[in-house]
Amino acid sequence: MKTNFPFAGMSRRSLLAAWAVLPAFSGLLLPASAQAADATSALPSWNDGPAKQAILDFIRVTTDPASKDFVPPEERIATFDQDGTLWVEQPMYSQLAFCLDRVPAVVKAKPELAQVEPFKTVLTGDFEKIGKLSLHDFEKIAVATLTGMDVEAFQADVKAWIAEAKDHRWKRPYTELTYQPMQEVLTLFRANGYKTFIVTGGGQDFVRTYSEKVYGIPREQVVGSALGTKFGYDKNGKPILTKEPKLLLNDDNAGKPEGIHLEIGRRPRAAFGNSAGDRQMLEYAKSGDGARLAMLVLHDDAKREYAYGPAQGLPDSKIGTFPQALYDEAKKDGWFVISMKDDWKRIFAFE
Amino acid sequence: MKTNFPFAGMSRRSLLAAWAVLPAFSGLLLPASAQAADATSALPSWNDGPAKQAILDFIRVTTDPASKDFVPPEERIATFDQDGTLWVEQPMYSQLAFCLDRVPAVVKAKPELAQVEPFKTVLTGDFEKIGKLSLHDFEKIAVATLTGMDVEAFQADVKAWIAEAKDHRWKRPYTELTYQPMQEVLTLFRANGYKTFIVTGGGQDFVRTYSEKVYGIPREQVVGSALGTKFGYDKNGKPILTKEPKLLLNDDNAGKPEGIHLEIGRRPRAAFGNSAGDRQMLEYAKSGDGARLAMLVLHDDAKREYAYGPAQGLPDSKIGTFPQALYDEAKKDGWFVISMKDDWKRIFAFE
Repeated sequence: MKTNFPFAGMSRRSLLAAWAVLPAFSGLLLPASAQAADATSALPSWNDGPAKQAILDFIRVTTDPASKDFVPPEERIATFDQDGTLWVEQPMYSQLAFCLDRVPAVVKAKPELAQVEPFKTVLTGDFEKIGKLSLHDFEKIAVATLTGMDVEAFQADVKAWIAEAKDHRWKRPYTELTYQPMQEVLTLFRANGYKTFIVTGGGQDFVRTYSEKVYGIPREQVVGSALGTKFGYDKNGKPILTKEPKLLLNDDNAGKPEGIHLEIGRRPRAAFGNSAGDRQMLEYAKSGDGARLAMLVLHDDAKREYAYGPAQGLPDSKIGTFPQALYDEAKKDGWFVISMKDDWKRIFAFE
Repeated sequence: MKTNFPFAGMSRRSLLAAWAVLPAFSGLLLPASAQAADATSALPSWNDGPAKQAILDFIRVTTDPASKDFVPPEERIATFDQDGTLWVEQPMYSQLAFCLDRVPAVVKAKPELAQVEPFKTVLTGDFEKIGKLSLHDFEKIAVATLTGMDVEAFQADVKAWIAEAKDHRWKRPYTELTYQPMQEVLTLFRANGYKTFIVTGGGQDFVRTYSEKVYGIPREQVVGSALGTKFGYDKNGKPILTKEPKLLLNDDNAGKPEGIHLEIGRRPRAAFGNSAGDRQMLEYAKSGDGARLAMLVLHDDAKREYAYGPAQGLPDSKIGTFPQALYDEAKKDGWFVISMKDDWKRIFAFE
């Protein structure tokens, strides 16, 4: 049959593989009604409500060729903050845990640091004291633990660490502490031809080591805070890149849209965050032409996860601050606030 | 028929659309022999010879699951210099032509510049004099013509310019002066699951305006020299990014692997260039584990294009310098030199 020509002779497995590819283009291939049906069953961990509906509506109007808000495939860019938006950020960013865990190895290589602050305090393992270190102290720890090595050696170290390290509350690898409802959002966006990007205040090199495995987001679709590197040759003459103590991109606050422009080059159609550091990214995404989606995850579920941020009278937190002003801006400008307590049927895949 | 289920009810057009998607995964779908057959007919503008064979061999060994050099799909990254590798760079980079063409508008906005160098010289339109301006003068022109505006306004300006501007020799838009054999290489790589990136010393914002249309390479897969941007709000309160006179990434020489790490995060499997500015990128790509491909386009065809670069006794050129040392390194380290004269059946699609 002529119209079946492209698939003639392909095995069932090949066809299934082909099918796995097709969803990326389903905006082009399927009639709008089929898409809508898919979308409704696409967010099983979400309760019905305005947040879920906003996501489904956005997908529908931007991928239905008959819609006035149809978005051509190359413009389908969606950006996601990581810490607190895709996975747990309390009580401490996982990357900070990585840095602290590396201190003993750094001190072993340079024993004189054992008597020098802030390394002396870190070596005590007393988290109360460590929590009182200054920002400047943490910068010293970052320089000591994140720079001076070959980028590929660093990737191997992060990979080894993240395979072993566990969160203290759930006693599980950090990589299992991703929010199942947000994993479903990533999948839904990709199934509708959106390229999904992580845009994180965390280290780009750090997140890239696991983004593909954990979120299905390839390394080149991770924008994050970035140190410079220096090209050179190792002792065998092999070209390498060495991580330098020079901040190229501080991918937080205004740095998020700036980082998006640097590494993506397009105003995103949709953006998801959870704190004041995501404000400019959401403003930037929301203010372009046509249909736009800006969403904030509110951590208001002390029982299943955490409750923090002064919005709605929750306790303040050094991490993932969600001030009342951000909440007010969201309400005023048509962003959506996702209540973990009310909008999410479950938080984690392992529940 | 059960195995045809995924495509049941799809129109011929949908099937064709699906087919267009499939080649990206053909490395997974087709048996090795089918791939090889595809590959042989994939470079119709290439003469048989070591360069063509090197490309076909590389594709074969990295995509055949039975090969010891098989490369998993997520690691299939290929990087391409633009000027002189994908399109004509003589007698002047097109971006420089863009900057010079913008000078009258800049002077109109600031009339006092008409009497100030280097703008005074540019306004004469005398290319001999303009060619004698210093690097510092060109930096002043770049700052005046590439900074201070909203990034989206800049994109619109470049788009309008490139639709009109013509090369002086062929009297055709610059965008038609891409090398057909290299377009075929891009297509072949993508058909085998490689993500193709442009890695250019030229301006990232400039090249991104046309990369999708001209090369099928989306904006986010263009790495280039990049100025910083500053997030702010326009007079209506709309969030915008303004181009700043601050060089974030000088994407040439050592800056190429550094830019690749910043925006891609992986050592490329294959890299193509044509000048000393591509040396470090090719060294970086070639020196990783497993099968690697490093290729240099040699401009040795004065009749159909240009002949320049001291390698093989060709004239030197300020643009796209290809010194003898680079040629020697290529021969010593197993890179391939592509002779435009001998390896390419035709240069342009319009021939």
